[in-house]
Amino acid sequence: MSGRVVVLTGGVGGAKLVLGLQQLLEPANVTAIVNTGDDFTHLGLHVSPDIDTLLYTLSGKSNAAQGWGREGESWNFLDALRSLGGEDWFMLGDGDLALHVLRSMRLARGESLSAITADFARSWGIAIDVLPMSDQLVATHLDTDEGVLPFQRYFVGRRCQPVVRQVMFEGAAQAKPAPGVCEAILADDTTAILIAPSNPYLSVDPIFAVPGIRDALLAARAPVVAVSPIVGGDAVKGPTAKLMRELGSVVTPQAVAAHYGDVLDGMLVDERDARVNLGIASVHVDTLMTSLDDRVRVAQAALALAAGIR
Amino acid sequence: MSGRVVVLTGGVGGAKLVLGLQQLLEPANVTAIVNTGDDFTHLGLHVSPDIDTLLYTLSGKSNAAQGWGREGESWNFLDALRSLGGEDWFMLGDGDLALHVLRSMRLARGESLSAITADFARSWGIAIDVLPMSDQLVATHLDTDEGVLPFQRYFVGRRCQPVVRQVMFEGAAQAKPAPGVCEAILADDTTAILIAPSNPYLSVDPIFAVPGIRDALLAARAPVVAVSPIVGGDAVKGPTAKLMRELGSVVTPQAVAAHYGDVLDGMLVDERDARVNLGIASVHVDTLMTSLDDRVRVAQAALALAAGIR
Repeated sequence: MSGRVVVLTGGVGGAKLVLGLQQLLEPANVTAIVNTGDDFTHLGLHVSPDIDTLLYTLSGKSNAAQGWGREGESWNFLDALRSLGGEDWFMLGDGDLALHVLRSMRLARGESLSAITADFARSWGIAIDVLPMSDQLVATHLDTDEGVLPFQRYFVGRRCQPVVRQVMFEGAAQAKPAPGVCEAILADDTTAILIAPSNPYLSVDPIFAVPGIRDALLAARAPVVAVSPIVGGDAVKGPTAKLMRELGSVVTPQAVAAHYGDVLDGMLVDERDARVNLGIASVHVDTLMTSLDDRVRVAQAALALAAGIR
Repeated sequence: MSGRVVVLTGGVGGAKLVLGLQQLLEPANVTAIVNTGDDFTHLGLHVSPDIDTLLYTLSGKSNAAQGWGREGESWNFLDALRSLGGEDWFMLGDGDLALHVLRSMRLARGESLSAITADFARSWGIAIDVLPMSDQLVATHLDTDEGVLPFQRYFVGRRCQPVVRQVMFEGAAQAKPAPGVCEAILADDTTAILIAPSNPYLSVDPIFAVPGIRDALLAARAPVVAVSPIVGGDAVKGPTAKLMRELGSVVTPQAVAAHYGDVLDGMLVDERDARVNLGIASVHVDTLMTSLDDRVRVAQAALALAAGIR
């Protein structure tokens, strides 16, 4: 496999696929475009959960058992904050704080999120090009039966319990793709564009909501291949299945393919799901990514599907 | 001892005396006016070292062996920050960060340092009235043989090594005493005003530099009694002696008394220092505060001297 591979990704599930790509390919030939719709300001600090999950995963610092955050994390900050009456509903680990404090300081100085993210990746020896979808703020909000909730209030504060009626991306209309995003999608040497098995509504749609990115995907020479986030009629983790039902969708790979629409040229479907005609190229494999070998295997299958389309 | 006791204080040495007062008196009858000239913005966070030292000391959280910071502190934030290329010359512990993050967030919202400090003290069960000298920024700078240095760059970054020619308090002329400061000094029921054995030039002078505080001390009915920071012709710790010499002073209690000038009504002098006429009331005792008993004893001696003057 030569040429560049671009991958659109959200949080934990997406990071697994990107880790597979990092193992499989020359990392410098991979560009990850990361959802920043989950970003929010907490305690005055700019938190970028999906970027951080990817940085932790690719640098070997992620807490695999917990599913988020840093391995060997300590919580003295949060304990002290609690003793001072500070908000403790969002878990900020001691080591994790370094990313938020440094990012916030540099953003306040006028530096861009993409420049800061690139520096962080470089500091941790990550050769993959990690790009936020945009340097402008795009904030995912959910219209629910409890009113409109910012993403983290819904996801962490309310553990995805409210019934969602609509997902909105505040600021998206004014946002621009971060430097390098459309360039990577459209580059002549880009041979595959993957959509990671992240939540289509909460992790991938915010990326599509940034004006220009969807058009770039439609114009790209490279095939766009999604790894289905559905496994045997359910989501592997997180609120994907519940959210799809609440938004009136069935929980099938077809529904995800239909949701992505005309940007999609192919889909890697889990072997547990029905072999129906998606109207695009598709291959059935075991898409569960439990081990590192699984991650490499799924990445390889997605790239093989893209190569077949090309 | 009835009535209110007011104490002007800086960092570690001053906090020892205030702790003695907390043991000796009804804490609600004590007002501590704290130097904020050491405050600075680090990594985008507002750090108030002397306020924090006092809060840690009075709530039993201070690290006695280390002489600063929290007992049982961890350093995962700083390790992670270092791995990202962040500035690590100023030690920010994981638990310690809670004060800085919460304070910074609340200051950014427009709350005052005095209101925030009062909340912190209340959260930690401190009944002493802990007041910053001012809610406005006053920044101690030192004109040295290496140029003008902000306080923490001189104190922590350069470990007090540069030769000091002058001490300056930027912003002091525009600052106002924090709410409660002059009121406590001038209150009818205030029976003693103590100046803790903090660095006269770096911890007490910034308080005097806030317009109105010195005048209030001159107008106060209560006697103003300093605990000499000199013990046997040297300072107990820190750069006091070196700084006094660099500024052309001798290192004696007389020199400190002369430096404070007409605000002073009495001085508690260490028994190791010469019994000379200070021109004000004075008593010689052992002023070293190694144990908690020492702190109580020195506080008691200072109050007795004040009572004798009154």
